[in-house]
Amino acid sequence: MADINSRLENGPQATPIGVTTGPIRGSRKIHVESPRFPGLTVAMREIALEPSANEPPLRVYDTSGPYTDTNADIDIAKGLPQLRRDWIMGRGDVAEYDAREEKPEDNGQLGPDRSGGVPPFPMPTKRPLRALPGANVSQMHYARQGIITREMEYVAIRENLGRKQLKEAALRDGQDWGAAIPDYVTAEFVRDEIARGRAIIPNNINHPESEPMAIGRNFLVKINANIGNSAVASDVANEVDKMVWSIRWGADTVMDLSTGRNIHDTREWIIRNSPVPIGTVPIYQALEKVGGVAEELTWEIFRDTLIEQAEQGVDYFTIHAGVRLPYVPLAAKRVTGIVSRGGSIMAKWCLAHHKESFLYEHFDDITEIMKAYDIAYSLGDGLRPGSIADANDEAQFAELYTLGELTKRAWEQDVQVMIEGPGHVPMHKIKENMDKQLAVCGEAPFYTLGPLVTDIAPGYDHITSGIGAAMIGWFGTAMLCYVTPKEHLGLPDRDDVKVGVVTYKLAAHAADLAKGHPAAKFRDDALSRARFDFRWRDQFNLSLDPETAEQYHDQTLPAEGAKTAHFCSMCGPKFCSMKISQEVREFAAKQNAGIETFVANEAEAEAGMAQMSEKYREAGSELYLPAAE
Amino acid sequence: MADINSRLENGPQATPIGVTTGPIRGSRKIHVESPRFPGLTVAMREIALEPSANEPPLRVYDTSGPYTDTNADIDIAKGLPQLRRDWIMGRGDVAEYDAREEKPEDNGQLGPDRSGGVPPFPMPTKRPLRALPGANVSQMHYARQGIITREMEYVAIRENLGRKQLKEAALRDGQDWGAAIPDYVTAEFVRDEIARGRAIIPNNINHPESEPMAIGRNFLVKINANIGNSAVASDVANEVDKMVWSIRWGADTVMDLSTGRNIHDTREWIIRNSPVPIGTVPIYQALEKVGGVAEELTWEIFRDTLIEQAEQGVDYFTIHAGVRLPYVPLAAKRVTGIVSRGGSIMAKWCLAHHKESFLYEHFDDITEIMKAYDIAYSLGDGLRPGSIADANDEAQFAELYTLGELTKRAWEQDVQVMIEGPGHVPMHKIKENMDKQLAVCGEAPFYTLGPLVTDIAPGYDHITSGIGAAMIGWFGTAMLCYVTPKEHLGLPDRDDVKVGVVTYKLAAHAADLAKGHPAAKFRDDALSRARFDFRWRDQFNLSLDPETAEQYHDQTLPAEGAKTAHFCSMCGPKFCSMKISQEVREFAAKQNAGIETFVANEAEAEAGMAQMSEKYREAGSELYLPAAE
Repeated sequence: MADINSRLENGPQATPIGVTTGPIRGSRKIHVESPRFPGLTVAMREIALEPSANEPPLRVYDTSGPYTDTNADIDIAKGLPQLRRDWIMGRGDVAEYDAREEKPEDNGQLGPDRSGGVPPFPMPTKRPLRALPGANVSQMHYARQGIITREMEYVAIRENLGRKQLKEAALRDGQDWGAAIPDYVTAEFVRDEIARGRAIIPNNINHPESEPMAIGRNFLVKINANIGNSAVASDVANEVDKMVWSIRWGADTVMDLSTGRNIHDTREWIIRNSPVPIGTVPIYQALEKVGGVAEELTWEIFRDTLIEQAEQGVDYFTIHAGVRLPYVPLAAKRVTGIVSRGGSIMAKWCLAHHKESFLYEHFDDITEIMKAYDIAYSLGDGLRPGSIADANDEAQFAELYTLGELTKRAWEQDVQVMIEGPGHVPMHKIKENMDKQLAVCGEAPFYTLGPLVTDIAPGYDHITSGIGAAMIGWFGTAMLCYVTPKEHLGLPDRDDVKVGVVTYKLAAHAADLAKGHPAAKFRDDALSRARFDFRWRDQFNLSLDPETAEQYHDQTLPAEGAKTAHFCSMCGPKFCSMKISQEVREFAAKQNAGIETFVANEAEAEAGMAQMSEKYREAGSELYLPAAE
Repeated sequence: MADINSRLENGPQATPIGVTTGPIRGSRKIHVESPRFPGLTVAMREIALEPSANEPPLRVYDTSGPYTDTNADIDIAKGLPQLRRDWIMGRGDVAEYDAREEKPEDNGQLGPDRSGGVPPFPMPTKRPLRALPGANVSQMHYARQGIITREMEYVAIRENLGRKQLKEAALRDGQDWGAAIPDYVTAEFVRDEIARGRAIIPNNINHPESEPMAIGRNFLVKINANIGNSAVASDVANEVDKMVWSIRWGADTVMDLSTGRNIHDTREWIIRNSPVPIGTVPIYQALEKVGGVAEELTWEIFRDTLIEQAEQGVDYFTIHAGVRLPYVPLAAKRVTGIVSRGGSIMAKWCLAHHKESFLYEHFDDITEIMKAYDIAYSLGDGLRPGSIADANDEAQFAELYTLGELTKRAWEQDVQVMIEGPGHVPMHKIKENMDKQLAVCGEAPFYTLGPLVTDIAPGYDHITSGIGAAMIGWFGTAMLCYVTPKEHLGLPDRDDVKVGVVTYKLAAHAADLAKGHPAAKFRDDALSRARFDFRWRDQFNLSLDPETAEQYHDQTLPAEGAKTAHFCSMCGPKFCSMKISQEVREFAAKQNAGIETFVANEAEAEAGMAQMSEKYREAGSELYLPAAE
């Protein structure tokens, strides 16, 4: 892997931004053409195997964007190419307009000197797009009109992972709990899922850099990585780097959860350089605009923040409209109260004013904005449990019912919706979350944080939550929000982001396997064959994290020869079960009768054993026999 | 925590052996007295909380032995005190005898110079114990005679974790899948579980240093850590250190899987210093004795190895007696063949001789040895699947049925048994493993390796297997064999051992929680309350790994003051949901009516809201009100 650091020097407040580029070890970027839309190609990653494998390269889903494409010209200061711009313009239902004027409070009430180290994104401000009056540019709207968009086609090809070639081999083996995963994903299937509300394609028309992806129970399980500065640690270069780093390892979407200063500019850098959908929680920025005093939030300030972020290209908004005034007392009884930041802000606002939440009251107004830009709702679970003690309680489910009600209201305007879920839930209470969500929210995609299955392992909460995530993903959750080892303790650094992403990637994949996704098992089987054949390099390359796999191998056996050795450091050559097992298999294959025959008839076998034994000993004890003619 | 390195200098082949001693951060060793047996005390760990918590110290299960006891005098060259020696002698059914003579091949055919760096354990060779002729010294035998041993009493007190005091609070909330977990563990309950074969207490009479512990579905889920040298890396000091290190973090038993030279001496060092049961796979050493040529193994060599290890004090033996000749062809068809070392050795032997396995043929002879020392069977799953592709196949279940048959044969002689399980299993096939095992093996304890729920994440297999382990633990598995990040890649170092142990400890605890174990939730709740109260030190101390938790916290906020701050680096003070949530709760408490009342009647609430709002604003926006008189 080549590491190329793209560095930016930009005037007096120069911020060097370095991101990792170059292919992921052992693989290359390929582009699969659409038969439906000429010129539309879908990026994938292809892992070539050693010649001795005698297997075709394995195609895997690729979230890393142009950063891993050796042919791409990466310039962070320019942003990514606008893949979807022509598609959006071509539909004839949008127009450019003069953007909302940027305000000092957008970046945390800083003066024009912008002290704090975040320069504005250097490209000339473009005029944002918006739906023409009366138009609705959401993918759901197109889908319900029977239109197959380029976005849907992209998703269909992307989800298949070259499954067509492998179709015959795709034996279905799984328990999908009532999902409807097709053998082969067609664009029409994608359209139908979007139309029903069972999947979403989050892609704001002002984020044309994004590669379309779907979130839904009948597609591959997706994962989200959270990044973002805070009042305690703020550095735009770090955040852009974390975004690129997290998609390199498999993040399907990224949420920018910045709460500190420079929120607007940080987000611009991130979106312009992101090939994956970007989500935000707009109430965070709105709160910054009122100096952190929740009671001073107003609908007008919030609305203005939505427009600001819509124009920048945010693809989905977490909106905590389910935190209604009557539910607040339910949460006050809890062991850990309200642990959602957005939820606690809204609870405080509701109590202070003794009024119903303005998010709930203005929900239809928000929906009007969403449909003008094709922003998807991520209906926030502001009352999610923050501890095992509070799991599946009255407050949590009261909010969920309201989210179900709001889902239907959004769907009335053809706006895409997913539903956020917990949090902290012991294993025996996880399935109830999924079942209730499916029932109450009309099968809108579920998007959960973990859940953590115990509270007693801070420092390992990527694992406590990875367990819950794998399970709820199996049960039907469409996207899993990652948790890093620093959860509950501090801000994740680069290493934490990678560990969080890989942990969630394996959890999502385990869920796909258990659901019986027809393509999921190919990669496990390819890796297992490589393992049995001692193709160490193939094992590394087929891994979610080839670098770590190789590094761990080399810690005990660094010699280059050990990568082709028919054993590893765990057992050494004499004890290697794989090696012995191969000998057993080869021996069996070399026998005329075959071992199956000689044990088939127990009576005969008894008699024949002494003879067979002799034959074996004659042939040489090491079992490597010359091939029989 | 104080790190004291005990170092040993022992003649010309001096091996310095350093182990970590001193209490685990924030806790102290306590000893709870038995009301039944005067002088019998059970070691536990007690975590004191900050005075502001106004909570009693929390007692937790402690596997760490005397190493964390500030009053203990640790000398690795002398071994641990013989806690159980008097108990064993007091039963009057054992006698000392002249040990089997040590042979050069016991240590890998080395000459008397023992080159290779492992000195013999320096204490004078003691005469081993064995049951008197005709006697059976197994805990199962006593249990079936209605005898409550000191070992059973120890287990009962240990499992309760001071549950008696907390009895009222122990609300049962879980799904136990048919287990029979009592509210309170009595010695009689332990006896009954042992008698039925639903639990075992592995404790060889020649390992009197061990603190009794139970493995069974109706007790806390246990974990095992594997250590051991290999032909590639061999160092006794490392292995003793890993044993002490792994029990410090929670390993309930340790398996010495050494396959290289110096097996006998390495094992002696480990057993003499281990307060937890030690398991081995005797076929590994037997194979070393025949120079690694599986075909040359004989019953006589194997039997001699069993005696050798029985005299040293091994508490449970993995015996792959279920790998029968007719099953070998079933495994030959697999993607990854036979991945159990013991299984592949026996398969090779069976094929080479075209004979039924000598382990199967001599099973009753083995049982005779087991009952003379009280060694428990761990019936090995030599045909466990080594990949997702091979999970739950014919070979695996054929062997399981044989293990069920052997369980009954062992029980006929009152010998304790547990059953080993897979391996690599996708989530939707895990429960079938548990259900079949319970049905076929008469509820004998299940002891599984993971299972890994996907093959594609080498380097993260502690996590892929931790997911499966938590699930199968919930379903009823009694002990989970850990997997480290190095699985499939190399030998685990000290850090890997710790990560593996903590990962499995959290998985086991998640299983206890989900099963509704009455004491499990206390720790989660105590930690959650500490989190909500911003008692950072209590959070760290209540964690499975206090050191890592604190270190992660301090990476972003190292100042001492940040440990009492009412926020952390993730959100900063303004956005802390916990802080806002506390404000909401305090506000509610301070109101005469309480927030529950003001929203109870919606009609009244509407009218009263303006008034309440005013009251709130008058009281001060920050919500910290002086306590009402």
